[in-house]
Amino acid sequence: MAKRRVLIVGADAAGMSAASQLRRLDRDVEILAFERGSYTSYSACGIPYLVAGLIKDPRRLISRTPEEFASSGIEVRTLSEVVQVDPEARRVTVQHRGGTYQEDYDQLLIATGAKPLRPQVEGIDSPGVFGVNTLDSGIELMRAVEDRRPRRAVIIGGGYIGLEVAEALNCHRGIQVTVVERARTVMGTLDPDMGELVGKALEDVGIQLRAQEALSSVESSGGWVKGVWTDRGFIEADLVVLGLGVVPNSDLAERSRIPLGVRNSIQVDLTMRTAVDGVWAAGDCAQNYHMLTKRPFYVAMGTSANKMGRVAGMNLAGRHQEFQGVLGTAVCKICKYEVGRTGLSEREAAELGLDFVAASAADETRAGYYPGSGDITVKLLALRGSGAIVGGQIVGIEGAAKRIDVIATAIRGGLTAEDLVAMDLSYAPPFSPVWDPVQVAARVLLKHL
Amino acid sequence: MAKRRVLIVGADAAGMSAASQLRRLDRDVEILAFERGSYTSYSACGIPYLVAGLIKDPRRLISRTPEEFASSGIEVRTLSEVVQVDPEARRVTVQHRGGTYQEDYDQLLIATGAKPLRPQVEGIDSPGVFGVNTLDSGIELMRAVEDRRPRRAVIIGGGYIGLEVAEALNCHRGIQVTVVERARTVMGTLDPDMGELVGKALEDVGIQLRAQEALSSVESSGGWVKGVWTDRGFIEADLVVLGLGVVPNSDLAERSRIPLGVRNSIQVDLTMRTAVDGVWAAGDCAQNYHMLTKRPFYVAMGTSANKMGRVAGMNLAGRHQEFQGVLGTAVCKICKYEVGRTGLSEREAAELGLDFVAASAADETRAGYYPGSGDITVKLLALRGSGAIVGGQIVGIEGAAKRIDVIATAIRGGLTAEDLVAMDLSYAPPFSPVWDPVQVAARVLLKHL
Repeated sequence: MAKRRVLIVGADAAGMSAASQLRRLDRDVEILAFERGSYTSYSACGIPYLVAGLIKDPRRLISRTPEEFASSGIEVRTLSEVVQVDPEARRVTVQHRGGTYQEDYDQLLIATGAKPLRPQVEGIDSPGVFGVNTLDSGIELMRAVEDRRPRRAVIIGGGYIGLEVAEALNCHRGIQVTVVERARTVMGTLDPDMGELVGKALEDVGIQLRAQEALSSVESSGGWVKGVWTDRGFIEADLVVLGLGVVPNSDLAERSRIPLGVRNSIQVDLTMRTAVDGVWAAGDCAQNYHMLTKRPFYVAMGTSANKMGRVAGMNLAGRHQEFQGVLGTAVCKICKYEVGRTGLSEREAAELGLDFVAASAADETRAGYYPGSGDITVKLLALRGSGAIVGGQIVGIEGAAKRIDVIATAIRGGLTAEDLVAMDLSYAPPFSPVWDPVQVAARVLLKHL
Repeated sequence: MAKRRVLIVGADAAGMSAASQLRRLDRDVEILAFERGSYTSYSACGIPYLVAGLIKDPRRLISRTPEEFASSGIEVRTLSEVVQVDPEARRVTVQHRGGTYQEDYDQLLIATGAKPLRPQVEGIDSPGVFGVNTLDSGIELMRAVEDRRPRRAVIIGGGYIGLEVAEALNCHRGIQVTVVERARTVMGTLDPDMGELVGKALEDVGIQLRAQEALSSVESSGGWVKGVWTDRGFIEADLVVLGLGVVPNSDLAERSRIPLGVRNSIQVDLTMRTAVDGVWAAGDCAQNYHMLTKRPFYVAMGTSANKMGRVAGMNLAGRHQEFQGVLGTAVCKICKYEVGRTGLSEREAAELGLDFVAASAADETRAGYYPGSGDITVKLLALRGSGAIVGGQIVGIEGAAKRIDVIATAIRGGLTAEDLVAMDLSYAPPFSPVWDPVQVAARVLLKHL
């Protein structure tokens, strides 16, 4: 009898988490992964720090190579793109070095990740305009920074990636950075009042923010970018970086008639099974679930991709494991500032028709007298009836952001604002004021409830 | 009709939290606090950083002065010690400048704090032997460090305070420090395996640890300490600091026949009411409750004192508020190392007869490739049946300790090891690996469950 055969499309976080989990639980199954690019399992989240020069060797971002996977019995074929799935025949078509071939499967996992948003404006393909979505694009940007020593950069988009690259270029490379953001405030997953604080932080570290401004075209001269036009005028630049966020890379699934869900992500149930027999999906290409609302939604995060991959791997091994969903927890460092968010924003809570109260408190990261203590603002959202915490956002200096995990855990545990006030959180002067800023925010919230 | 009158004995964390809360809820009540010392509401936890020279002015440790309290209608009499309570007559006797007088009360709150353990050995009262329990003693120690420039110090006791003073003298003052600890490992609230890691950390930063060694006597020469004798020999020292921990300062209560409970702390219910009508107690002098076991226990912590004071204040104002108890959460910084603990230790869990599993994982504080990433070990305890998390301990470098709050919140929320693995904790390379070390420990724990 032939071995059971699992094929994986995409050899990064979700795909290879699934592969590793499956191999751990099943020593016999044949596992074969196809990767369109040349690298496996690399940290896309690490690219801004490569650009910053904090990491010298791009290979440090790779957590496991094809050779390392091979040694645990997982075959990876790089530069191999799966271009078609035939779910009836349980067969994929693979493109490699100009030719194509086919491979049969018993089970198929699609983990094709996300693709960056690319504005369709004049000059967008000019030399000097960079994406930061793949390791190759990150390396190209790093080389441009080191070889051409640009003085001025424009970042298109003030989301996490955009601001991390802004940090890299401004604080680590000494480049004058302008961030162009279409919305009124940066970081759309924050409420505007907290986004406003991030805007002030940018200003404080010397990053120029041009909000409510949209890219119109890119202008070049002598084969290299010389600036961008927006609906408000011209901004000079020796370097343009696109940081507009991502959408699910569900092209293969769509082409293969595998049903899509929220924001064109591949529809999956909590076990990562698609609507098509024998086909699974996980990671940034797949539909996510909100831990709190239990509703499908979309978010592209390395943490989530790893968790979805782990769940898919367990189920591919014949276990029954359900994904618990995510809270949209995220953190971001911008020079000396830190930002965190989890759970529902005011807009999300309002869209769900929830009766909620929001409150925020400005406090300090450590005991006021301890050196290095500084500003932190914590915002909390709770339901009016029960007082249950449903969201939180943090902006502050070093030590601020990771506190978002306490709020995420409180949401998951169904804790109320009163519970948070009564929580036994840790205290010593180098770490926190006696009442942790999260608790101070909970105390303010209690007064409003 | 005369105003209702609340007297408070002890004008520090618990007493003044209660006073402030009471004043906020009741504008009419008369509030009068007696403080034996000369300072109100100061951070005893800040004393090691005063000794370290990180805080130049001791007044920075005072969060509110008697004058500031007076302006919000709270009278504080310093250098005034309440020496007797007559609960039948609802009257206290106050000693001030050699004389005594009496004051009547409607309600009385005892918040006399804790007193340091002092080994009764020869020479213990010699000049050069310091405590670090009051602001005055901290100032004395700071002056001795600055004026006498000692080269060698011995710390008696390897608990939090002892190790924080060891950090202050070693890492900030360049003094050669030896810690003498009676037990096999330092930090008795940690399990021995984690205490062992703290021992290694001490060694790494150049603090000498002499474990399983007990103080026998203190030797002086020319009116100043010259070393200590232990059961193993002589240790030269120009400075000796006592950091043996504290016991409840329940002398006044005992003298006044107010019943005591666990470890001679003043017995209180969850509203902070003692067994005697009209008498309340809160803070380090009072019995605490464990959030998880719901049993009375004793712990002396600023966080807890503040919370107990707040609860007492609300109840003194006629509300009904119950203290939720604590988890024994604590953190400590020792030079580049950090330590945290919460919930039950193995010993505590065993004493309660719980069927539990413990597991630990060594990981990194940030993404492996991010500069400054370093060691962190997380230990978790969970119940074998339900998988519910009941305790956690952390030892690691910068960024490690505050993660204990996630574990504390998980315990409070009744989360299991599996829930922790599935939790949506925050990730970005400067803050964490993709799987937070707490989740890595939970994954190891899951395998054992």
